[in-house]
Amino acid sequence: MADARFFSRKGPFSVAEIAALTETTPVNAPDETRVFQDVSPLQNADGDILSFFDNRKYLDAFVNSEAGACFVRPEFVERAPQGMVLFTTKDPYRAYAKAATAFYPFETGNGIISDNAVIDSSAKLGKGVQVDAGAVIGANCEIGDGTIIASNAVIGDGVVIGAGCKVGANASISHSLIGNLCLIYPGARIGQDGFGFAMGPQGHAKVPQLGRVVIGNDVEVGSNSTIDRGAGPDTVIGNGCRIDNLVQIGHNVELGMGCVVVSQVGISGSTRIGNFVVLAGQAGITGHLEIGDGAKVAAQSGVMKNIGPGETVGGSPAVPVMEYHKQTVALSRLIRKKK
Amino acid sequence: MADARFFSRKGPFSVAEIAALTETTPVNAPDETRVFQDVSPLQNADGDILSFFDNRKYLDAFVNSEAGACFVRPEFVERAPQGMVLFTTKDPYRAYAKAATAFYPFETGNGIISDNAVIDSSAKLGKGVQVDAGAVIGANCEIGDGTIIASNAVIGDGVVIGAGCKVGANASISHSLIGNLCLIYPGARIGQDGFGFAMGPQGHAKVPQLGRVVIGNDVEVGSNSTIDRGAGPDTVIGNGCRIDNLVQIGHNVELGMGCVVVSQVGISGSTRIGNFVVLAGQAGITGHLEIGDGAKVAAQSGVMKNIGPGETVGGSPAVPVMEYHKQTVALSRLIRKKK
Amino acid sequence: MADARFFSRKGPFSVAEIAALTETTPVNAPDETRVFQDVSPLQNADGDILSFFDNRKYLDAFVNSEAGACFVRPEFVERAPQGMVLFTTKDPYRAYAKAATAFYPFETGNGIISDNAVIDSSAKLGKGVQVDAGAVIGANCEIGDGTIIASNAVIGDGVVIGAGCKVGANASISHSLIGNLCLIYPGARIGQDGFGFAMGPQGHAKVPQLGRVVIGNDVEVGSNSTIDRGAGPDTVIGNGCRIDNLVQIGHNVELGMGCVVVSQVGISGSTRIGNFVVLAGQAGITGHLEIGDGAKVAAQSGVMKNIGPGETVGGSPAVPVMEYHKQTVALSRLIRKKK
Repeated sequence: MADARFFSRKGPFSVAEIAALTETTPVNAPDETRVFQDVSPLQNADGDILSFFDNRKYLDAFVNSEAGACFVRPEFVERAPQGMVLFTTKDPYRAYAKAATAFYPFETGNGIISDNAVIDSSAKLGKGVQVDAGAVIGANCEIGDGTIIASNAVIGDGVVIGAGCKVGANASISHSLIGNLCLIYPGARIGQDGFGFAMGPQGHAKVPQLGRVVIGNDVEVGSNSTIDRGAGPDTVIGNGCRIDNLVQIGHNVELGMGCVVVSQVGISGSTRIGNFVVLAGQAGITGHLEIGDGAKVAAQSGVMKNIGPGETVGGSPAVPVMEYHKQTVALSRLIRKKK
Repeated sequence: MADARFFSRKGPFSVAEIAALTETTPVNAPDETRVFQDVSPLQNADGDILSFFDNRKYLDAFVNSEAGACFVRPEFVERAPQGMVLFTTKDPYRAYAKAATAFYPFETGNGIISDNAVIDSSAKLGKGVQVDAGAVIGANCEIGDGTIIASNAVIGDGVVIGAGCKVGANASISHSLIGNLCLIYPGARIGQDGFGFAMGPQGHAKVPQLGRVVIGNDVEVGSNSTIDRGAGPDTVIGNGCRIDNLVQIGHNVELGMGCVVVSQVGISGSTRIGNFVVLAGQAGITGHLEIGDGAKVAAQSGVMKNIGPGETVGGSPAVPVMEYHKQTVALSRLIRKKK
Repeated sequence: MADARFFSRKGPFSVAEIAALTETTPVNAPDETRVFQDVSPLQNADGDILSFFDNRKYLDAFVNSEAGACFVRPEFVERAPQGMVLFTTKDPYRAYAKAATAFYPFETGNGIISDNAVIDSSAKLGKGVQVDAGAVIGANCEIGDGTIIASNAVIGDGVVIGAGCKVGANASISHSLIGNLCLIYPGARIGQDGFGFAMGPQGHAKVPQLGRVVIGNDVEVGSNSTIDRGAGPDTVIGNGCRIDNLVQIGHNVELGMGCVVVSQVGISGSTRIGNFVVLAGQAGITGHLEIGDGAKVAAQSGVMKNIGPGETVGGSPAVPVMEYHKQTVALSRLIRKKK
């Protein structure tokens, strides 16, 4: 279904192949050699197509779907339309992710260095590295095997990027060490000076920013997001973090593993964030705070105090989320009284 | 008045010409051959200059202006200074827009392809297309007549862009179909992967994003704004939309016709927005919502629920705007009592 | 301590040299010829290192530090560890900024014009100007002595940039006059069209934007920030302003001297801001307002009314900050009553 101008499809894959690669259990699958041609959401799927049912909100779509096959939790097997092949799993969306990736594998470097790229002779490029037209790679850079540097991206002197990464078009990276399998989206800015100066009426004196940005493995940094380098210590992004578009991460910030930072969030300097923290859209976090493992921050919240592990907060200034909901209710009652 | 280093002026235009091109009625204009040299706001205008009076707030400036001519609503004719030529119309600002565009026409492609652009041999370029230094155009792209691709912009493989468009410096576009007469400002990011993954403690599994961005005609996308492509369905921007700078539009979002999206707004994935909706600055819209035609969302609002056609909402979480104002008043009364 | 892949250090500097360049007074410094090798925060410093103690929160770190020398306010001299050389001053952070700048001087142009830059023959470049690979400089530009134009930056026709500036990678500038000693960070967008159009159901008619962006001396514009040019008047940024990442500044806005604009702030069109105003992160300022000298706006505030000189406001809609704090307290009391 995907537009062939933009996507090229692998496959088909048989029931047995799909079950193996997604670690799911085929049900209602009399013929394990039957093949499927593509993946698609439930609404648009037909008999050759593999889909998924994850969110109960879409139960109707599932019950009425013409998809040939579907990833589904075991408890929904009975609700499936007649003849649909099922792959049962506790996590249908993850299984779909794996199957879709088999049909549409992620890009890896094709080993072609554009004649129109500008690469310093001291830079070390791994096997299969792809450098597109207009990309600029500075002195002493190290780029790992299979990494792609897209058109007009700029990699500053000394930057180290691991294997299997992609740096998107027009992104720029300086003063940074980046792990393997990272996706840096178009226009992301990584490693520039933090916002550090001594304020005063005679002028604000810039303070040299002497740290780096250190990014782990399997990290995504969204389009036009900005991650400033440390002032002395480093700015650190842990393994597996997902950072959406237009996010600001200030100098010396540390993110643990697996954090999810939604679009337009801002994290001020020197704040330390634990593992698997979720910051919803447009939230703002003041500087020099500690946010515990597994904490969640609601959209548009303004966090001014430390957050303990596992806590969920909302509002501006942010408070525990139950308190925030009560405030919202109290406020709406208040105006009903005033009428 | 405009700095000749940056702007080149056409004209002069006579009273008759101006009336014709702006569809206005000349008043106090004994000599229809009299010409005007330029356009300007009321404060800086002199006898050769054409201005406009639209916002009552500037009545004093109108009454005291030395502008030679002015677009004005009929009811203000009597307030005009002696000798000022008037062009009456219900919409003076729109008339001014047309006149100013006659003096300072929008740029169109000059047909020059820079030797320093990198264009795949399979790309199809229309008549008059201009491609500036450092721009990169991928395989099988189609670029319509008179479109400008500015310096260091990157157009990915297969992208289709209509006629009369401008793609600004350092912008990047992939996986997209764009209509005619669109202005994509510098640094805008269109068509990159949406923020889609199956979360889990063993890591967040990326889900291939198999849709496109489909943009209608006469659309503007502001500087450094980001529009992610769909996950399966497309992300769709209707005809005539105006999107300001630093706006985030998530995957699968649909905007109807003529929407105005002010700077730093964020729209989460799969939300559907009707026609002529206005989203004011820094507003955030949660995912999977429906926003009706003609709805208005106040600045910094946090929209968590559907909005009906024609409704205006404010606050975070957003409520009908009258309720929001009452909440604000109630809150300020509350603290007066507590003193 | 700074990573030698990214930073090269000058020095060492003696007690006498440090005192002279930072205008501080050496204390506990029996040997004025003793040299220090580097700068560092208190926690990581050892005997060869110069540090600073500014924020009382770090008193413990000061008392226990092994730093060889430290900038400190006179009242803390007695708390210093035995043997530490002290440099007393009223503003230790500013002294540190100067010392750190001596060890790690700011970059200035090396006079090399890359063969891969594209520079119009009519552009005038000062002495020592550095233009990196992929940068594009348009017709009639003027670039002052020692200025650096980094890779893939785009400078539009007619733009004037003063001496000692740096324009970062992938930044773009058009329709602008920029002073001396300005730092424009990667991906910043300066001078593009403002968000101006006559709205209407028959379509939104674009209004030509005929002003410029005029930036003073010693201004910083952060990564991926956007400053639109004026509609008729200019957009003006005064001397010494510090603008962080992802900030939006609309057309016709004026900022006075020394303003500090933190990340993700948005300033709507035609608002005039005085001198030494501080706008904290994610604040939004409506258009056509006047913000007085020395005013402060708290993070995430939504400013809808003028602010007098020296006032501090918070909340959305913003109110005087004391009132805002009382509102927050009143709201939290309200829900305690409701339990």
